[in-house]
Amino acid sequence: MKFTVNREKLQKALQRVGSIIGSRSMFPVLGNVLMQAEDNVLTLTTTDLEIRISTKIEAAVEVPGVSTAPARKLASLVGCFVGADVMFDIDDKDHIKLKCGTSHFTLLGLAAADFPAAEQFEAKREIRVKEGEFKKMVASIAYAVSADDSRKVLTGVLLSARESTITLVATDGKRLAMQEKTPESITGGDGDAIIPLKAAQETRRLLDGDDLMTIRIGDKQCSFVGNDFELTTKLIEGNYPNYRQVVPASFSRSVEVPASVFLGKIETVSLVLSDSSSYIILRFENNQLRLQASSTEVGEGSDMVEVAFEGEPFEVSFNPAFLADPLRNCDAESVRMKLNDPLNPVAIEADEGFLYVIMPIRKK
Amino acid sequence: MKFTVNREKLQKALQRVGSIIGSRSMFPVLGNVLMQAEDNVLTLTTTDLEIRISTKIEAAVEVPGVSTAPARKLASLVGCFVGADVMFDIDDKDHIKLKCGTSHFTLLGLAAADFPAAEQFEAKREIRVKEGEFKKMVASIAYAVSADDSRKVLTGVLLSARESTITLVATDGKRLAMQEKTPESITGGDGDAIIPLKAAQETRRLLDGDDLMTIRIGDKQCSFVGNDFELTTKLIEGNYPNYRQVVPASFSRSVEVPASVFLGKIETVSLVLSDSSSYIILRFENNQLRLQASSTEVGEGSDMVEVAFEGEPFEVSFNPAFLADPLRNCDAESVRMKLNDPLNPVAIEADEGFLYVIMPIRKK
Repeated sequence: MKFTVNREKLQKALQRVGSIIGSRSMFPVLGNVLMQAEDNVLTLTTTDLEIRISTKIEAAVEVPGVSTAPARKLASLVGCFVGADVMFDIDDKDHIKLKCGTSHFTLLGLAAADFPAAEQFEAKREIRVKEGEFKKMVASIAYAVSADDSRKVLTGVLLSARESTITLVATDGKRLAMQEKTPESITGGDGDAIIPLKAAQETRRLLDGDDLMTIRIGDKQCSFVGNDFELTTKLIEGNYPNYRQVVPASFSRSVEVPASVFLGKIETVSLVLSDSSSYIILRFENNQLRLQASSTEVGEGSDMVEVAFEGEPFEVSFNPAFLADPLRNCDAESVRMKLNDPLNPVAIEADEGFLYVIMPIRKK
Repeated sequence: MKFTVNREKLQKALQRVGSIIGSRSMFPVLGNVLMQAEDNVLTLTTTDLEIRISTKIEAAVEVPGVSTAPARKLASLVGCFVGADVMFDIDDKDHIKLKCGTSHFTLLGLAAADFPAAEQFEAKREIRVKEGEFKKMVASIAYAVSADDSRKVLTGVLLSARESTITLVATDGKRLAMQEKTPESITGGDGDAIIPLKAAQETRRLLDGDDLMTIRIGDKQCSFVGNDFELTTKLIEGNYPNYRQVVPASFSRSVEVPASVFLGKIETVSLVLSDSSSYIILRFENNQLRLQASSTEVGEGSDMVEVAFEGEPFEVSFNPAFLADPLRNCDAESVRMKLNDPLNPVAIEADEGFLYVIMPIRKK
């Protein structure tokens, strides 16, 4: 096996596939990257047994073949090299000879036969969507995924297809974030898939720009296929809760709030809180949204945002982190807060199909 | 106590004094910054009982006074505020009212009387040196300070004054770094002081540019006094070893090596090593300096740097981290490696008074 690749392209490709590599696995081959060279293409693949990522780059292939190299060592070396091209010469014992500029290295690889094979699956449904749009969708909701393993389905992101619309949903039981979009196309009809958070975040990291990608959804697996990468993940099995029922049917109040100013004030006022179970109070009155917080250890603080609100003053309290999350991630200039009373769910809406539902905190 | 200060200047000043504040101290007041307002100057002071840092900024002082505020909370708040000025209004219970733009806060301070008083000391010696030059001096040697508390004097940086020269020295017993300089002036005659590493590093962080600063050295304390700051530290007591005797009187070989290229090759070749007790081999031959390393776990690597070296090939081995340290920190384009044989100390010299001595590793 013998091929030459551009050093910078190789470095980027190794970064794209390398992030799922754990520091120490039970199986040494999971620390390696699978290299397949043929037809002037080098395919690099990594897996953690849940997720599998591949990417392709041009290569001048003299002798085609397959082998695996320690992924982190290879990435570090390629990052240190100073030449334009890296020459690979790999013998049948998976001794990987590398040459770049004045550098000569031999890395000890492992047989490609030991690398887990890709599981094929039949796609029941295919969604075509712009890479950049799906990236934003994931970013706008992923923070709300549950970190609690006892209810497995909530540790993933729901990808729901209904007619011409896809919806991403995340909830940890205390708040819920959802983002709707009309993709380029959906084939295969309605259906749901629960994507593990790590796979959703890895996919987000790989996405960029206006190119279309395809989401291929099977019964137990799903693939995200872009121009120059493919990520396949196992799906989480089980039934996602009926998230539509937590969204109140109507609200008696609606206030438009500038997102980044509001976020800044929440962060500032929260600084006087001394533990994470604390709350901040929002008070709507006379075209002002006042924020207040206090703790016996640090002191107290207040600030305000100008909003269009008239009528009876109205007070409601929140966990500041839960209130800040959607503002920090939804990529909107302004949001609408929709409320009924201080005890019932409050919604934060933004344009382009974003909805967040959060329970106020009952004081005392 | 009542004063107004520019928000950005206050933020920078809090950063300058804040770094020695630990996360949790036995004494809550050590987490606070002492604020003294008088004559249109606000003086901010922090201490960890070893080191004390003060800085001054302009202030419009309405009512002079002293108080202390939680340093990190105050710095975070001031960093979040959006207005141009911050107004302080502090009552006699040390309740600190802050106002900036639309933000209103009250922080719970502590009485200035509880803040450790500054210890005065008599300076036996005073050194005047440019801030930026002393900063570089500290950077070029500080990495060689010992991390082993069992020999206390080696956990500090020696500042030695002899006639018109100052020398900074650091050693951990395995290698030694020293940097000489002729400062603007020395008064008070010859003498040594051992500065704790943390104080040397904090001083380095505060220094910048061509302004002159004064180093005031007493028996048990020393102060670094710049235009807008003063850092006082306890000195380490004891006798520093006779470092001059580890420098060989003469060398049989001297080779000029480009510093950053050599550093890059050391880092690259070391990537094949699997533990920190490993070594890399330098081989001088035919106007080349070849670097080689290998391990049974990862593989092997070699690279080379062009140098002016003729004569009998010559091989010597080093701990790669110890070899890289001076190249990374001495701020020289090229260094001279001076050697006798593979078993005796090797020197790395750079212009402007830098000298590093390291023992080769005996193989097998």
